[in-house]
Amino acid sequence: MPSDPNEASDAGGAGGEEALIAEFWAPLAAGFPGAFNLADDCAVIAPPEGCDLVVTTDALISGVHFFADEDADAVGWKALAVNVSDLVAKGAVPLAYVMSVALPALDRPWLTAFAAGLSAAQEAFGCRLVGGDTDRTPGPLTVSITAFGSVPAGGMLRRATARPGDRVYVAGTIGDAALGLALRRDPTLSARCRLDEAARRHLAGKFSRPQPPLALVPALRACASAAIDISDGLMKDLRHLCRASGVGARIVAADVPLSEAARAMLDAGGAAMDGLLTGGEDYTVLAAVPAERGDEFQSLAAEAGTRVTCIGTLTAAAGETVALDADGAPMRFAKMGWDHFSPP
Amino acid sequence: MPSDPNEASDAGGAGGEEALIAEFWAPLAAGFPGAFNLADDCAVIAPPEGCDLVVTTDALISGVHFFADEDADAVGWKALAVNVSDLVAKGAVPLAYVMSVALPALDRPWLTAFAAGLSAAQEAFGCRLVGGDTDRTPGPLTVSITAFGSVPAGGMLRRATARPGDRVYVAGTIGDAALGLALRRDPTLSARCRLDEAARRHLAGKFSRPQPPLALVPALRACASAAIDISDGLMKDLRHLCRASGVGARIVAADVPLSEAARAMLDAGGAAMDGLLTGGEDYTVLAAVPAERGDEFQSLAAEAGTRVTCIGTLTAAAGETVALDADGAPMRFAKMGWDHFSPP
Repeated sequence: MPSDPNEASDAGGAGGEEALIAEFWAPLAAGFPGAFNLADDCAVIAPPEGCDLVVTTDALISGVHFFADEDADAVGWKALAVNVSDLVAKGAVPLAYVMSVALPALDRPWLTAFAAGLSAAQEAFGCRLVGGDTDRTPGPLTVSITAFGSVPAGGMLRRATARPGDRVYVAGTIGDAALGLALRRDPTLSARCRLDEAARRHLAGKFSRPQPPLALVPALRACASAAIDISDGLMKDLRHLCRASGVGARIVAADVPLSEAARAMLDAGGAAMDGLLTGGEDYTVLAAVPAERGDEFQSLAAEAGTRVTCIGTLTAAAGETVALDADGAPMRFAKMGWDHFSPP
Repeated sequence: MPSDPNEASDAGGAGGEEALIAEFWAPLAAGFPGAFNLADDCAVIAPPEGCDLVVTTDALISGVHFFADEDADAVGWKALAVNVSDLVAKGAVPLAYVMSVALPALDRPWLTAFAAGLSAAQEAFGCRLVGGDTDRTPGPLTVSITAFGSVPAGGMLRRATARPGDRVYVAGTIGDAALGLALRRDPTLSARCRLDEAARRHLAGKFSRPQPPLALVPALRACASAAIDISDGLMKDLRHLCRASGVGARIVAADVPLSEAARAMLDAGGAAMDGLLTGGEDYTVLAAVPAERGDEFQSLAAEAGTRVTCIGTLTAAAGETVALDADGAPMRFAKMGWDHFSPP
């Protein structure tokens, strides 16, 4: 190496941003040619021939979206999963993502575990890191991911295209993540509800490591007239879809699919149905499916190994988003779901 | 409107995230069909026929990348401009961007001015907001933008493709932003250097409202063998390009283009040359141009109304990134540029 009078100065030093990128982030870009090993200013992303590129962005902030003492690998997993959830609900298959991360400290064990969580999520969802930005912050750790997926040209599923008469389907079960959060907030709740360890782990895992139903994409593309991801709460996201489509909805609370663990907590009085329908963080899909496509949707979902459940019907009564209780009466909700900016 | 038992609950309330989006962000998406008025989960972005999509991401954190009392419209401008700078250096024309913003408070006048700054930058750079995420944070205000541009297929300018013998060009002037920052940090500096108001404003503006040289894109595409945006500091970004390309560089400090205001500060002893070459935040382009294309590059740049200056030559001495002083001796730098994570 020829003598460089400035060889010893900062760049490339042990703690430098370049070294950070090489150690923690570049391995996550391996195998994606347009990422240039994260060694350039930009990446090149090309959707497959005949496909549109679909884009979404979601951030996680320590103390807001996850507990400050959350496992770092769960934070990495969740940071990508919440974005993949938006892609899946639009009928898109994940391709790639970029990440902007603001760190309060250079905590190498934390970064190692965080990168492992991202790596596991990448494998599960089939995408690669292609670019990023790493900064120091005097505030809480913040991870902002922008994720890219592909859909057949013109085929992105919309919120605004549902029709009266369409059936309302949800994938997976509802309310588990809200219960996982409740268990984290109240360490005595699990014992009071006599939850067994498997049930407790199930609910905690649904909160910490959401699993958007990627396998459902072919069924959604084939059958759904509209779809949305359930992140703010089932009732609120249903209302989002209804408002965008100019329709109403009547769902039957008793038909909303619950896990055994959630049912056990309901039965023990540790949770209430309205909390499950509005709790948020489900990171699954709500789809509108024309009545005549319902059987096909269910069989395609079954082939994909994904549970889907019809919970109601869309109506022509725009503005009316109703959940019926066991007596057939409309439930009343103090809030429909999560909002960062709603008045208290 | 039919009666909805939950009409009054949170979503759509005066302070809700949806209302925020409608008031501040949706106008920034007007005219971009794939943005769906920011009323869906994802956007669709398609590069023009025959083009690749180029992606970059950069965040600004209050108190780190800008002063907490900075004008909100300057924050909006700069948040987009720093991303456009990366696109321009890659020969890309901006198309669109998504933004994740974390707010410590719901400050409507601040948001109004911030959105106005984004709007002005959109107009200047020819792109639209197509998606986003708005959160509350207990930490400093943080804006993370991911920007998209297009280049002719296969034509993204790289860091890694410069050759020995190529001339090193920079667009615009160097060091102004670092001086603008110094003036903000030391309110007595301007008077000590006897800067006039126009000079002070020029330097402050280069720091607060960077102007990446978008008009230079055709000249870069036609003539550059490699390029990088100058954001960490001229010396550091030159070294980035050299390392990626496996070349060295010899530049002549006296040839580095300075504004009249910067020269006045140098002459008054309020700045030193090494600080200008390493200060960062220039948000302009450093390009490697084969010697035989130099004249064409300069004339295309002149046609575009953009000043470009040859400051040196790339060499075969990989690892040697040298700036020669007035005596022809290599300058020594305590640091080559900005790094969030370098040891102090």
